[in-house]
Amino acid sequence: MALNEDRLFPAEPATRAVARRLYAGVKDLPIVSPHGHTDPRWFAENELFPDPAQLLIVPDHYIFRMLASQGVPLEDLGVPRRDGGEVETDGRRIWRRFAENFHLFRGTPSRLWLEHTLETLFGIDERISAANADSLYDRIAAHLAHDDFRPRALFERFNIEAIATTESPLDDLKWHAMIRESGWTGKVVTAYRPDAVVDPEFEGFADNLVRFAELTGCDTGTFAGYLEAHRVRRAFFKSFGATSSDHGHPTATTANLSPVEAETLYRRVVKGEASAADAELFRGQMLTEMAKMSLDDGLVLQIHPGSVRNHSPALFQRFGRDKGADIPSRTDYVRALKPLLDAVGFEPGLTVVVFTLDETTYARELAPLAGVYPCLRLGPPWWFFDSPEGMKRFRESATETAGFYNTVGFNDDTRAFPSIPARHDVARRVDCAYLAELVTSHRLDEDEAHEVAHDLAYRLAKEAYRL
Amino acid sequence: MALNEDRLFPAEPATRAVARRLYAGVKDLPIVSPHGHTDPRWFAENELFPDPAQLLIVPDHYIFRMLASQGVPLEDLGVPRRDGGEVETDGRRIWRRFAENFHLFRGTPSRLWLEHTLETLFGIDERISAANADSLYDRIAAHLAHDDFRPRALFERFNIEAIATTESPLDDLKWHAMIRESGWTGKVVTAYRPDAVVDPEFEGFADNLVRFAELTGCDTGTFAGYLEAHRVRRAFFKSFGATSSDHGHPTATTANLSPVEAETLYRRVVKGEASAADAELFRGQMLTEMAKMSLDDGLVLQIHPGSVRNHSPALFQRFGRDKGADIPSRTDYVRALKPLLDAVGFEPGLTVVVFTLDETTYARELAPLAGVYPCLRLGPPWWFFDSPEGMKRFRESATETAGFYNTVGFNDDTRAFPSIPARHDVARRVDCAYLAELVTSHRLDEDEAHEVAHDLAYRLAKEAYRL
Amino acid sequence: MALNEDRLFPAEPATRAVARRLYAGVKDLPIVSPHGHTDPRWFAENELFPDPAQLLIVPDHYIFRMLASQGVPLEDLGVPRRDGGEVETDGRRIWRRFAENFHLFRGTPSRLWLEHTLETLFGIDERISAANADSLYDRIAAHLAHDDFRPRALFERFNIEAIATTESPLDDLKWHAMIRESGWTGKVVTAYRPDAVVDPEFEGFADNLVRFAELTGCDTGTFAGYLEAHRVRRAFFKSFGATSSDHGHPTATTANLSPVEAETLYRRVVKGEASAADAELFRGQMLTEMAKMSLDDGLVLQIHPGSVRNHSPALFQRFGRDKGADIPSRTDYVRALKPLLDAVGFEPGLTVVVFTLDETTYARELAPLAGVYPCLRLGPPWWFFDSPEGMKRFRESATETAGFYNTVGFNDDTRAFPSIPARHDVARRVDCAYLAELVTSHRLDEDEAHEVAHDLAYRLAKEAYRL
Repeated sequence: MALNEDRLFPAEPATRAVARRLYAGVKDLPIVSPHGHTDPRWFAENELFPDPAQLLIVPDHYIFRMLASQGVPLEDLGVPRRDGGEVETDGRRIWRRFAENFHLFRGTPSRLWLEHTLETLFGIDERISAANADSLYDRIAAHLAHDDFRPRALFERFNIEAIATTESPLDDLKWHAMIRESGWTGKVVTAYRPDAVVDPEFEGFADNLVRFAELTGCDTGTFAGYLEAHRVRRAFFKSFGATSSDHGHPTATTANLSPVEAETLYRRVVKGEASAADAELFRGQMLTEMAKMSLDDGLVLQIHPGSVRNHSPALFQRFGRDKGADIPSRTDYVRALKPLLDAVGFEPGLTVVVFTLDETTYARELAPLAGVYPCLRLGPPWWFFDSPEGMKRFRESATETAGFYNTVGFNDDTRAFPSIPARHDVARRVDCAYLAELVTSHRLDEDEAHEVAHDLAYRLAKEAYRL
Repeated sequence: MALNEDRLFPAEPATRAVARRLYAGVKDLPIVSPHGHTDPRWFAENELFPDPAQLLIVPDHYIFRMLASQGVPLEDLGVPRRDGGEVETDGRRIWRRFAENFHLFRGTPSRLWLEHTLETLFGIDERISAANADSLYDRIAAHLAHDDFRPRALFERFNIEAIATTESPLDDLKWHAMIRESGWTGKVVTAYRPDAVVDPEFEGFADNLVRFAELTGCDTGTFAGYLEAHRVRRAFFKSFGATSSDHGHPTATTANLSPVEAETLYRRVVKGEASAADAELFRGQMLTEMAKMSLDDGLVLQIHPGSVRNHSPALFQRFGRDKGADIPSRTDYVRALKPLLDAVGFEPGLTVVVFTLDETTYARELAPLAGVYPCLRLGPPWWFFDSPEGMKRFRESATETAGFYNTVGFNDDTRAFPSIPARHDVARRVDCAYLAELVTSHRLDEDEAHEVAHDLAYRLAKEAYRL
Repeated sequence: MALNEDRLFPAEPATRAVARRLYAGVKDLPIVSPHGHTDPRWFAENELFPDPAQLLIVPDHYIFRMLASQGVPLEDLGVPRRDGGEVETDGRRIWRRFAENFHLFRGTPSRLWLEHTLETLFGIDERISAANADSLYDRIAAHLAHDDFRPRALFERFNIEAIATTESPLDDLKWHAMIRESGWTGKVVTAYRPDAVVDPEFEGFADNLVRFAELTGCDTGTFAGYLEAHRVRRAFFKSFGATSSDHGHPTATTANLSPVEAETLYRRVVKGEASAADAELFRGQMLTEMAKMSLDDGLVLQIHPGSVRNHSPALFQRFGRDKGADIPSRTDYVRALKPLLDAVGFEPGLTVVVFTLDETTYARELAPLAGVYPCLRLGPPWWFFDSPEGMKRFRESATETAGFYNTVGFNDDTRAFPSIPARHDVARRVDCAYLAELVTSHRLDEDEAHEVAHDLAYRLAKEAYRL
């Protein structure tokens, strides 16, 4: 379907007119993408993307999980197996399987993102179907062969002012170094995501600690040395532009142990003797430690809790992490964040951005907490909730208590590079729609709504993340 | 109030116009009712319904619970007492009590269903009140005396293509046999609801097991024999058209014990030595066992968890089960369903339909799970949520992650036979209203919305339940 | 911004027209305020309010918490410190800090309330800003110097038919006595809020019990004597017009212990030996005891559970209670209320009004419970949810199961006296908007909607609270 200029706006004409005016003021603002998972290698090497399926289907778990849920084997969609077993490599056949099942995406944000991408990048405004699968594939493939579809060209065409990738402390940041050395001026920064050396239950944790010591020259045998290794590595990440750390824990648990307790706990962790409760406590302690380091180095602390990762062991064993089998679960914040907030909640200059996969906490816990602690900001709707209805519920639930200025604008949080403009566009439209309803119900004047729209689309992300 | 043609459609004219067009395409589709609680005896004996109160008030817990909540004793509404004590038997007096309190139903789905029934079945388009109570009673009673108000005539007038009742394994299905023998061609099938022999906390569980053994000729003294009894009885139910089993457990807990563990647990259960935790574990184990049997016999597994049954002991003691005193509670699915999903989640041909009384799980747990496991489908909004706002919240919460095609259309799930067309009509209208909003906000093309409306009203239920 | 006549009404013109007509019928109804926290001293002494900041900013935790969350120290907003340390006393400077940050309140109910207050009380229809801060301050201050801005004059101008304050059993009710003796006819009644002598974890609990004994002449050394002290004090409160008790517990836990168990528990409590579990159990037991006393004296029992009070120890130590640092948490009702409901749930004449800070319970637990137990009524959206979106969600979630007549109209529940008309106005508008949508979607006739609007704005509160 051709993109309609009024998509995602309220149907009521007066409200739609306000939404249009608000959107006109923000649609061309540069993209600030302070948190996401694009691959820095793309920008470093600036190679052509291989084919339409490898660009649009294979790396997008939103898309392949929907197909899989209706019985299409992931192998047939080209998702690589951990054992190197055979999977589909013919991009055209992968694309056809997707196109034949395009009706499955009715009502989903994937559909919105994809159609936006096809029309704005490739000039395709037909609805995808089995009938046109081959012709669309050919048209996309033809574009991908051109230099103006290389990653850097797309970055510039997308009007990205700054983008953050996410790396492990064990990453050598060579792609970031290569970008810098290339002289290209696109702003691609890293972010410090230490789960691999913070979570005792992470695959290969013991080996990771060894490598962490090697990379930093610190003695990770003691808690003090381990913390020092983080400080060293955070400084290294900062030298590649990092302005934030990021933490993907199963819960929002934080802790603030005494030095002796922390040391004792760390000893169990480092010896591989940590129980599940120890692991949880250690992750919680490390959030508070990271917040304390932020007081010194200014990194924004991001907490992304509440995903039960790798729900299906069969799928995990066959295909590994991040294959769409992570499921949200009920998450508590009121008690979980208390130790961290008691320790540093009122420290000037600290910014903690909290995300959730449990929408019941927006109004009940997160907005009220953000109304007490100056360090706290609410992250935008995340993952399954980064969608028109999800964003609408977020604004309707959080704004009355937290206002707009305890939120931080939009994160696209994506691995799907070509979808970035679509995602920001959806967020801008949904925010303008929400603001338009405040205007027509006389809760906000239109001149104020213009200012808020601009803040939500651009300024808040830039300021909160110090980009 | 006379039924308005646009009821339940959005007020905004352009969206309403789309909703009208969508609804026009589905309003006359046959009714497929794959899960409910009508009494097969009605269709077997095909007797006249006794009086308006016995048809519309006494068997409808939505109605009598509302009156009771405002102080009308259930005895005065003709609800039978377990001890056989006196209750109102005069249908007219019951009807008057209801009519005097009709304002209590403002804003409720019971009001919608009832007015639809009165107008379409009895030609009554007045608002019920104390003033017209007697005249309405007489008009309804006059109709009920005619042959075209017998159960089979109504079944045909309602355009029911297929309906499932729900029976215990201890039921002899004699009414189903009588229907079949009668030569009447109305499709009334049973469903296998084994709570009475699966839940160690069910009233009379020990006696039920004895009866189960007698009926099947299996030795229910061993777990293997007990499972065999289920297989035998499921086959018997299939011979009366059953395409599904159904399980009403307090939680969604599932388990996948080793054979030895299962046998040991069963021994405690059968000896009446099961603790509350044992009972919970046993129910959970049996869900997985039932799923495994479904791999062989193809029955669709329905899980209806999360109701705290018989909340008031006083009410239970006086009036028994299913008297409106069952209260939803918070329900976890992510961890609860894992053992079953680990065991059979990717088995081809298996369909597990999961319901909930905890709406917070639609977006957080159920839609994400349905996006991973090919066997999983989301049941429609259930019980207190089978209502315009409840259905709207379901679509708004579940669609963006699960799409439409991981859902299974509508269930009326009712004991209130005359309300069936009303309930399906409400569901069709609400779905068309939702789809119309997708169309006017340019998230879906109208030709696609027509197809989806048809799928939701008819095809998905028929296919998911294999009817 | 000038108050628009259509504020908070739906934008769709036909629906807006219905909302206008409904609102016209209720906008001038007297205010019945059955639960709140205004200071009876105001009405007793009838002094002028000191200055705009002391009237509008300093006592309003909705306002100062938002400013604090963005880094404005509470000291700079004039919030008194427990240690008597210096805080801002210059009303004008406090007002300026607020005015400079007025954009923070965009989208919040505080903004709506405040603008309503400024325009209707002080004739100010400009948007607050740094630029006009001084001139607005002067205009408000000038008004406050006049006799028609004394508390009693405002009470009358606000058209308050009755208002309840909330006092501890240890309060001597001298301000209420002074009001009565003054001959002024404004109806200001007290309410019995015994947390200080019911919650073993309340500050100064042991001393409170001693004082409780002194005040009542009862022997609080035994449970029987302690209960008698409550009876005595409730009678005293009733003599000052009380029609309700109120209980602010961390959870909704109730208990119904045997007399021996209760006595034993009380002994531990009175000796200061109560564990956290004991304290929880004792609070729960006392809810049931209070309900039983209500059977005799007719007080309406209000339960306000689920707030984690004083979340920040640092803030509590510096500024004390009720400073915006209370955070809602997940709350169970189904199991928690069962002991009380088992004991007295069907007692005629008893009214228990239950509130929640956990919106997930509206549809899942509270509405279904209110549909079973004749004593139960649902309190209006409370605290963070006393807002346009919060009220809308309440109606959309609770009405389909509980109807309108298991709810009790509106509570303003405020310490901010001048905001009372604004709060009732918002509630009336939001209810009319909701009802208008039922009318235009043909779920309710307009004549019925008028009646319901009147009930929600006036009659239900008056009747439920026996005012």
